[in-house]
Amino acid sequence: MSVMRLGYVHINVTDLAESKKHYIETLGMDAVHEEDGTVYLKSWDEADHHSVVLTEGGVGLVKLGYKVSDEASLADIEQRVRAFGASYERMSKGDNQSVGDGLRITLPSEHTLELYSDIEYVGTATGLWNPDPWPRDGIRGIGVPRLDHTLITTEEPVLLERFFSEVLDFRPAERLVGGEDNTELVASWMFCGDQPHDIAFVQGENGKLHHFAYHIADWSALLHAGDVFSMHDVPIDFGPARHGITRGETIYFFDPAGNRNEVFSGGYRTGKDFRTITWTMDQAARGINFTHRELDQDFLTVVT
Amino acid sequence: MSVMRLGYVHINVTDLAESKKHYIETLGMDAVHEEDGTVYLKSWDEADHHSVVLTEGGVGLVKLGYKVSDEASLADIEQRVRAFGASYERMSKGDNQSVGDGLRITLPSEHTLELYSDIEYVGTATGLWNPDPWPRDGIRGIGVPRLDHTLITTEEPVLLERFFSEVLDFRPAERLVGGEDNTELVASWMFCGDQPHDIAFVQGENGKLHHFAYHIADWSALLHAGDVFSMHDVPIDFGPARHGITRGETIYFFDPAGNRNEVFSGGYRTGKDFRTITWTMDQAARGINFTHRELDQDFLTVVT
Amino acid sequence: MSVMRLGYVHINVTDLAESKKHYIETLGMDAVHEEDGTVYLKSWDEADHHSVVLTEGGVGLVKLGYKVSDEASLADIEQRVRAFGASYERMSKGDNQSVGDGLRITLPSEHTLELYSDIEYVGTATGLWNPDPWPRDGIRGIGVPRLDHTLITTEEPVLLERFFSEVLDFRPAERLVGGEDNTELVASWMFCGDQPHDIAFVQGENGKLHHFAYHIADWSALLHAGDVFSMHDVPIDFGPARHGITRGETIYFFDPAGNRNEVFSGGYRTGKDFRTITWTMDQAARGINFTHRELDQDFLTVVT
Amino acid sequence: MSVMRLGYVHINVTDLAESKKHYIETLGMDAVHEEDGTVYLKSWDEADHHSVVLTEGGVGLVKLGYKVSDEASLADIEQRVRAFGASYERMSKGDNQSVGDGLRITLPSEHTLELYSDIEYVGTATGLWNPDPWPRDGIRGIGVPRLDHTLITTEEPVLLERFFSEVLDFRPAERLVGGEDNTELVASWMFCGDQPHDIAFVQGENGKLHHFAYHIADWSALLHAGDVFSMHDVPIDFGPARHGITRGETIYFFDPAGNRNEVFSGGYRTGKDFRTITWTMDQAARGINFTHRELDQDFLTVVT
Repeated sequence: MSVMRLGYVHINVTDLAESKKHYIETLGMDAVHEEDGTVYLKSWDEADHHSVVLTEGGVGLVKLGYKVSDEASLADIEQRVRAFGASYERMSKGDNQSVGDGLRITLPSEHTLELYSDIEYVGTATGLWNPDPWPRDGIRGIGVPRLDHTLITTEEPVLLERFFSEVLDFRPAERLVGGEDNTELVASWMFCGDQPHDIAFVQGENGKLHHFAYHIADWSALLHAGDVFSMHDVPIDFGPARHGITRGETIYFFDPAGNRNEVFSGGYRTGKDFRTITWTMDQAARGINFTHRELDQDFLTVVT
Repeated sequence: MSVMRLGYVHINVTDLAESKKHYIETLGMDAVHEEDGTVYLKSWDEADHHSVVLTEGGVGLVKLGYKVSDEASLADIEQRVRAFGASYERMSKGDNQSVGDGLRITLPSEHTLELYSDIEYVGTATGLWNPDPWPRDGIRGIGVPRLDHTLITTEEPVLLERFFSEVLDFRPAERLVGGEDNTELVASWMFCGDQPHDIAFVQGENGKLHHFAYHIADWSALLHAGDVFSMHDVPIDFGPARHGITRGETIYFFDPAGNRNEVFSGGYRTGKDFRTITWTMDQAARGINFTHRELDQDFLTVVT
Repeated sequence: MSVMRLGYVHINVTDLAESKKHYIETLGMDAVHEEDGTVYLKSWDEADHHSVVLTEGGVGLVKLGYKVSDEASLADIEQRVRAFGASYERMSKGDNQSVGDGLRITLPSEHTLELYSDIEYVGTATGLWNPDPWPRDGIRGIGVPRLDHTLITTEEPVLLERFFSEVLDFRPAERLVGGEDNTELVASWMFCGDQPHDIAFVQGENGKLHHFAYHIADWSALLHAGDVFSMHDVPIDFGPARHGITRGETIYFFDPAGNRNEVFSGGYRTGKDFRTITWTMDQAARGINFTHRELDQDFLTVVT
Repeated sequence: MSVMRLGYVHINVTDLAESKKHYIETLGMDAVHEEDGTVYLKSWDEADHHSVVLTEGGVGLVKLGYKVSDEASLADIEQRVRAFGASYERMSKGDNQSVGDGLRITLPSEHTLELYSDIEYVGTATGLWNPDPWPRDGIRGIGVPRLDHTLITTEEPVLLERFFSEVLDFRPAERLVGGEDNTELVASWMFCGDQPHDIAFVQGENGKLHHFAYHIADWSALLHAGDVFSMHDVPIDFGPARHGITRGETIYFFDPAGNRNEVFSGGYRTGKDFRTITWTMDQAARGINFTHRELDQDFLTVVT
């Protein structure tokens, strides 16, 4: 498992100033760099140059970046991509601000996935010497510590699961199945380390973003986040709620452009020997929103 | 302020066995007495004989009982009821299981309100000697510690507020106003001690129950409660969420008969010098559900 | 019960600048007024002019102020003080900054207790119109919402309990007893509203302060408080921990002058019919620190 | 990184019946197997046959088991152990109840470390189909979900860190350094996945156990755990408290034999690119107990 985690999410936003306010003042990220209508943001507990990139113009996902442990792994993955038959290109240092060489893959779901191991090190807000548990001077709004995972939509979940499994060594922690005799894969939550998910996808239109998520400390941090959303007039999709799937706790909300975000806490520990949990469609609502067991139509239909 | 608190809620339920399961297994109350299709329940941190009474047959509120500090106060209140012009009768020891003499008042909203100071002392589950903070052997389901408040509907909020103020020395902690120039009282949250509310009412049909609420420890207890509701297939109205009004935290749900319950935590401290907070209709959704700022129609329309 | 709550604590501090930093930057109180080496502070959820008063010079308690609901009650209390035989004087508007007429009583324990019903109204930070649950722009450090109670020492707990009971209508929520056959009162936690305690006292030297306490939201707020104490180098006495007595959650710490403070959350609801809980000396450690069941000598011996 | 996690801790206990009560009734583990004075226990969220093994007779660590992802990795590790020059032997299926072939290594610190990839699969209490977030019928006491990490003592931290790094691909998340110019390694917290630590060691006597830890949900679960410890008369070492090192939250306590346990929540996400955090001795107390910044002598000196 050489892929370490979701490194960055690059999205389009309709109005950059408005979205900067959301990501900086409400979520509490720091703007690290801005150039030509694109702003690069990081959270306080992230050490790399950026984890969220906003470009003005439209809405939706530009691309995802997953960080790989080393250059040798990139070469190995390149071979596997070729073997899988996915289209890709080598990306070069400078193609992305502060990011080194890597691979740019077009997923079977038509999303762009970039893999890289080299990105400028900036350091966390608490530093490497006798650190505080959180930045005593630097929390704005919610103060999200770090990016966690993303959920995208795909016409062919089986194919995308096979890609992440065969090419990138991801494993499914949980799967939602439907159709006759539960033989059809509707959604899959896959991990590359030992958390419940680093990527997830659900059947839907290719190329779309359902949401990307930040990890926050715990259930109490979600109450605080919900308060801040209200004070800042951020639209809520649903939550605070317990997830059945991943066992985490959640609030879904929207940035000013309409891209769905999540703050997520909790979850269990996975690992290479983790046996996949299966959810059936009759329990899907409980899986998504364990507390309410109801899903609003927005959650099922709105993607960007 | 001689009224101390909401002492009991007596409701009708369609199926007693089913509702007993809800109040005993899910909420964790203890059945103290059962006779002729009526069951008397108490929570673990309550010392009096019962706080919830269920009678089989129909749905909705039979009556509310508020406990008064002493017999002398009952006499004083009787005079005030007469002066106010509300109809009432004296109730006698034995009219209610384990409850002594008192007053039975028909509120301007047509609800029956009983006042009493004498009720059989049973004691809390943790006792009076070197107690544990919660009963080490006796938590079932959510394990609600105690009843907290109730919300009823009335055609004339102003009149009901005047009753509770003039006759019972309640004060409004918060008020929701509407109409031209915000001169119309839509709802009022009133207290008799130093909590945010012991009774609340909102404009609506006379004689109806919107919900009654249990107090639980904190926001984390709400997550646990939400999990139990899901495991026990209890329908949720909304929550976990922050209230703007009372600043508490909440989940609303339904008993098997359709009576709305709430688990509630938090809130601020009031007192006789507390200045009333006012909410305007444009902020009502934020007042009820600060987190989401949206109200589903059920919450506004379903009463029993 | 006309006494509503602990209104203010006036203490001496050795270095005013240093202590202001503690109460303003660490605890998050606001300085409302400063004059002649005395500073008046309030917390964000308090509406009255001040709740903590610091005077430079020495250490320890100058006096306590408890707020009474109305002038008539003051007259009634004056009679009772006389009947009890405690010494007192009338205090006049202006004796205390922004406080009106009242009574200044010398308690049997030699502490000075002021009673008043008139104090300048300043208002809370969240206001009276469609308020947020906490001040979106104004939390510094821990951001304590309000003063809660105080614990003082007395040579004669029985006498002091009798004073608070007979003169001020306080009742004991919990008592610690020792001596032969548990007939000796060692400490008493007394309330005037429906919280577990508004004043407490333990056997010890007359005139001394053990601590005064702020109420904070919940157990999670205590973790945050503990982090801030560490970041600001505030000495901790003990906690976070559960109290057996009052069932609350706590951290004890010291201001720069050495006066002990507490942040306190939780507790149960009392009221006029609450039956007193009794702790015996063999369980005293569990009563104070339910989690550890050990008391350090500092907690038992350090007073100011 | 083929080592996945701490799989089991095997310890001696003086009185098996008494210790079973602690691990089963207080911590909430299940006894899976018992034979010849040895009992095998698992927690509800663990899928493998056992995670804690108790053998009657004495006190202290018998051995640690870390689970490896596959047989091929075991062969690779065997080569590295030889290259490192540590003594080891092959262990065979049946040497340990329900565990397959593996390696038994004598660490430079004289502890016995077993590595294995094959262990009987039992399954978690919530199962693999539409699972609840926790076992609705099966929580006893604290209900620890899973084992997390262990802390052992060693005469030569540098050597042990080199072993875990070179042979097992662990990395140090945090290090405590002392001596002249901070050039001496005092303790190291090392991870194999993406949590803050899977093993830790501190300078001390070879072959000793400082503690082993369970992961629990969050800070609120620690309050509950602390209450249960008190109700069950479990001796506390320290906590609830925040760790500076790992940023987690903790309570340390002792089993009836005197072996130190921990319940631990929180922590950050590491990974192969994580840069090591360094603590200096002057901040060590803050690193261990961020809340209090004091260490009692027991914590520093008591090992088993």
